[in-house]
Amino acid sequence: MSLLERYGHGGDLRTAEERFGLAGDAFLDYSANINPLGPPAKVLEAMSQSLSAVIRYPDPAHRSFKAALAEQLRIPESFLLPANGAAEAMALAILALGPQRVGVVTPCFSEYAQLSGQFGAQVIECRGLEEHDFKPDMEELYQLFQKAQLVFIASPNNPTGILYQPEELLKLAAWTDETDTYLVVDEAFLDFVAVEKQFSLADRLADFPRVLLMRSMTKMFAIPGLRLGYAIGHPELIRRMKEKQVSWSVNGLALLAGELCLQESAYEEQTRLLVAKERGFLANGIRELGWQTWPGEANFLLVRSKGELDAATLQERMGKRGILIRSCAMYPGLTDHDFRIAVRSRSENERLLQTFREVAEQGGRHPWV
Amino acid sequence: MSLLERYGHGGDLRTAEERFGLAGDAFLDYSANINPLGPPAKVLEAMSQSLSAVIRYPDPAHRSFKAALAEQLRIPESFLLPANGAAEAMALAILALGPQRVGVVTPCFSEYAQLSGQFGAQVIECRGLEEHDFKPDMEELYQLFQKAQLVFIASPNNPTGILYQPEELLKLAAWTDETDTYLVVDEAFLDFVAVEKQFSLADRLADFPRVLLMRSMTKMFAIPGLRLGYAIGHPELIRRMKEKQVSWSVNGLALLAGELCLQESAYEEQTRLLVAKERGFLANGIRELGWQTWPGEANFLLVRSKGELDAATLQERMGKRGILIRSCAMYPGLTDHDFRIAVRSRSENERLLQTFREVAEQGGRHPWV
Repeated sequence: MSLLERYGHGGDLRTAEERFGLAGDAFLDYSANINPLGPPAKVLEAMSQSLSAVIRYPDPAHRSFKAALAEQLRIPESFLLPANGAAEAMALAILALGPQRVGVVTPCFSEYAQLSGQFGAQVIECRGLEEHDFKPDMEELYQLFQKAQLVFIASPNNPTGILYQPEELLKLAAWTDETDTYLVVDEAFLDFVAVEKQFSLADRLADFPRVLLMRSMTKMFAIPGLRLGYAIGHPELIRRMKEKQVSWSVNGLALLAGELCLQESAYEEQTRLLVAKERGFLANGIRELGWQTWPGEANFLLVRSKGELDAATLQERMGKRGILIRSCAMYPGLTDHDFRIAVRSRSENERLLQTFREVAEQGGRHPWV
Repeated sequence: MSLLERYGHGGDLRTAEERFGLAGDAFLDYSANINPLGPPAKVLEAMSQSLSAVIRYPDPAHRSFKAALAEQLRIPESFLLPANGAAEAMALAILALGPQRVGVVTPCFSEYAQLSGQFGAQVIECRGLEEHDFKPDMEELYQLFQKAQLVFIASPNNPTGILYQPEELLKLAAWTDETDTYLVVDEAFLDFVAVEKQFSLADRLADFPRVLLMRSMTKMFAIPGLRLGYAIGHPELIRRMKEKQVSWSVNGLALLAGELCLQESAYEEQTRLLVAKERGFLANGIRELGWQTWPGEANFLLVRSKGELDAATLQERMGKRGILIRSCAMYPGLTDHDFRIAVRSRSENERLLQTFREVAEQGGRHPWV
């Protein structure tokens, strides 16, 4: 049985087509963590009207988008670097800083290790403690800062959804000076967290010249096909990263859509309310199935099934029923019963839970059922 | 007076706006070499209908586009790597091969040196001979192959438009084995050359495992804002380049548009006919002005003006009249009287020539006129 994650990630509808024989559009995709509301209508409409602008090169300096971003974040433009998705921003950090050893806290987004390997760094890890919601022992994390030249963490973390607290992040930022280590905080899913819990070091980066934040526009605004993310960091770090960026790497429609998305604060707030409510609904349903989940704060949940129904079996059975889930069996620190589900709309979530129940009632480790 | 090419290239309408005070759309842009017919109507229409697909991640393996490309080129998929513009393909070649010294033949596209510097290679050059249409002495070029680990050439070359002949390219390919040097042939503008002159090493790459070809989809199909190019090379080279490519680096709309563009052979042929005719018309007009041009075969011409009217003065005066030209004064091997113009439609070319005449009649080195 070939993996749905053969290219390392969820959301690969083409592989799902090949494996389950449905058209990509026909799947209910819980394997990618995208806003279930879809792209804001105004953004799609404006893009449609501006399609002919693809005849122009993208602005190599991202001036218009960067100015809008600076205004919305109240951060000077010199602290910002738009990128071809957050993945490119991470790659640029590694290329610019050239760490020999990159530290990660497992389980975490696989791109940290993937990109480190791609660009010649050795990956060392510190294991998140299951009994501590997969957050690491702080003493061990400090040792990771001592050994690595660059450390990746995510808040909220993927696939667990767990946030780091302000005092933890401030401690880590202080360690960057103490240990001469760079810290990259992946905030790709921070937009989905309730506003009062959205702590970020963004306002403190002038004080912490070794801290970088990575943001994504593609999850909240449901535009992963367009690719748009950005880095926030001290101007000297941003300059070094820009030096490694290939000309026109951010496409023109992404820059246009990004600028329009920044005006969609009502849509963002609506999304956060939906996600909070539906995350609770899903977590209850999961627990009623007798499965385990963790108190994630993002638009997805990590789930651990029970008994003979492991993640591979569930993925196969759900896929045949047109629903994609993300197996987490390959994450260091997780088990073959762990998988991740996105938070979607109520009717979709009801279908997900109902299908889980049907599949669970069959019992057994028989993926062909 | 700030350079129109402050970010290294033509087609920067945002800088033009800032400098000349017109809206970007209002310029007649001769500074970027884009098909004057604009994107094929069917492609724009299909993109418009598929905009909501941006909610899906791009296929990380580019399967559908790559299969269509392989079929059209009659080249196995393992020889192909789609990229976020040809510029990314060039960057991946440098990252994958890690040359200490990169050889270029000046004057040439500035990205070869730019990317080499970005990724830590020293640039060494061999000067094209003006009396030989800026092609190099073959003995000197051979020495470049001996000194460099990777050599960039372009056919047709940018900004000269001059083609390398089949026997020259085959000789260079043979040198790659002899000198253990990689050769990258930039074929970004080969689509615009008359079909009977379109020689490429594409069919010979199984024999030449150190040769890479770089292609662009954005010039012929007028979609530079979308970003799409690809590399052709031995599967082992392609595998090493893919290892350096960031996940989802080619966006979903580019992959979709690319696949549709491959069906536009009539549009391509119509473009080649237009370009051939209008290139001749422009070259005649340029010579009637008493200026020099070279026998380029692409969709642009290198021009050398005379006397006190240098490229900077011309660019300023033309810009104020709403027409952008590409100064080539910063190209090693060219002079401060050299500039490049795209080949556009007849009415546009008439306006260009008429404006050149007006500006030339004023004489003098007074950019404020």
